[in-house]
Amino acid sequence: MADMHQKHTYTDFAHRLADAAAAEALAGFRAAIHVDNKGKKDAASDDTRRYDPVTEADRGAERVMRELIETTYPDHGIVGEEYGKLRQDADHVWVLDPIDGTRSFIAGIPLWGTLIGLMENGRPALGMMAQPYIGERFYGDGKSARYRGPRGDGALKTRKCADLSDAILFTTTPALFDHDERPAYDAVEREVRLARYGTDCYGYCMLAAGQADLVIEAGLEAYDIVALVPIVEGAGGVVTTWTGAPADEGGRIVASGDPALHEAVLRELAICRA
Amino acid sequence: MADMHQKHTYTDFAHRLADAAAAEALAGFRAAIHVDNKGKKDAASDDTRRYDPVTEADRGAERVMRELIETTYPDHGIVGEEYGKLRQDADHVWVLDPIDGTRSFIAGIPLWGTLIGLMENGRPALGMMAQPYIGERFYGDGKSARYRGPRGDGALKTRKCADLSDAILFTTTPALFDHDERPAYDAVEREVRLARYGTDCYGYCMLAAGQADLVIEAGLEAYDIVALVPIVEGAGGVVTTWTGAPADEGGRIVASGDPALHEAVLRELAICRA
Repeated sequence: MADMHQKHTYTDFAHRLADAAAAEALAGFRAAIHVDNKGKKDAASDDTRRYDPVTEADRGAERVMRELIETTYPDHGIVGEEYGKLRQDADHVWVLDPIDGTRSFIAGIPLWGTLIGLMENGRPALGMMAQPYIGERFYGDGKSARYRGPRGDGALKTRKCADLSDAILFTTTPALFDHDERPAYDAVEREVRLARYGTDCYGYCMLAAGQADLVIEAGLEAYDIVALVPIVEGAGGVVTTWTGAPADEGGRIVASGDPALHEAVLRELAICRA
Repeated sequence: MADMHQKHTYTDFAHRLADAAAAEALAGFRAAIHVDNKGKKDAASDDTRRYDPVTEADRGAERVMRELIETTYPDHGIVGEEYGKLRQDADHVWVLDPIDGTRSFIAGIPLWGTLIGLMENGRPALGMMAQPYIGERFYGDGKSARYRGPRGDGALKTRKCADLSDAILFTTTPALFDHDERPAYDAVEREVRLARYGTDCYGYCMLAAGQADLVIEAGLEAYDIVALVPIVEGAGGVVTTWTGAPADEGGRIVASGDPALHEAVLRELAICRA
């Protein structure tokens, strides 16, 4: 009971973090804002992975979340995209990406989200994705997952889809994949029913909602994925690296709504890379 | 004054059409709905252009709009994606795409929209894009353009961006382009600051809103573009075919927020196809 109560408390607290981040993020969305390019010094203009825009909105949203965590849970750790690591060895570590999908954000597309994850003893225990422009939240604790949106709220549940030829696949962009990774990704994409790009965190939430079947990405950071694992797993899906290892350190990631599909995709990705 | 009054009336009527379509479209969005595949008989599974899902939502939304037009303006013509052409030679012809971005729709992604265009004496005179899940409308009459959204309403205005290297480019998917078109598109994409996929009608509206600079597509139908022309032009942008001809019959389309950028892109597309 104590544990359930604590989980409930942390979910409420994640909503408070999302509320605080929303005001900061929305202040910059569809506004004429200054866009830094962190990777510019050493980046070729056609290298999408290094193009890393940072906005005041991004920094402001992380700052208010960190302040709230420091005030409420001063012994918890924090890992954030913008302001780095603090007490990373704590039993509870909040993993924050204030604006996942910065490229959507700067182009006015509302598929970005604020990612709030909680690592408990080294495992993603709680996660939330908040999209404040649309007014949506997706959250889970690995055992169950729920959403709130402009048309109501409810449980998130992945759908059955064991066969690649029936699957809807998301990836943020094929430019994520390097020379080794691209042929493996392309082989999977050729077999699916439908592929959609430009989805970032929103794609994982649609997979959790039973609207799509597969997300394949590469080059992710921990803060890109930790918050999404308890949502996808709580909805009945699976998230791992391409080799089936835990996803919480990022890297090459596959998420599947149907565990049977996950096995098939891992096999395909392994064959192509052999 | 009579003309201005009529324009006002038609804009109000377009909102009524969008209201009626919204209920039908939303009933199917993120629901477990039957998806036909009109192109299946002769389509290879990797041919995105032929993959043409049709939903009950799509048909229902067009049906209620046609009924409203027939009742209110019985002498007006109608061209719709689902139910074809009626009195196409009338002075006023409504051009309807009940769900533009059907692939986003079936994947749960709220970047689809209901497109409502009005051709007056052979020219796109009025256009509206409605995204009812988010609660957004974008509309214009070629001279001005406006939006309504969850965070308020206002004027749409494209931004200055004369140089490709500063531009944000949208396309629905590179798979739109055939063997002739793809190298020309790729050459432009290589020069831009940022390219985003999966945008359909939503991309043209973000261009009108000054959030992006360029949309390049191919294989469009009249009902994919007629409603968007008065929005983009009303916001200060330009929409033509790749060779600079009027866009209202569809085909290969370029939209630019800055007329100077439009000239540069048409030159680039022409060189590449020579």
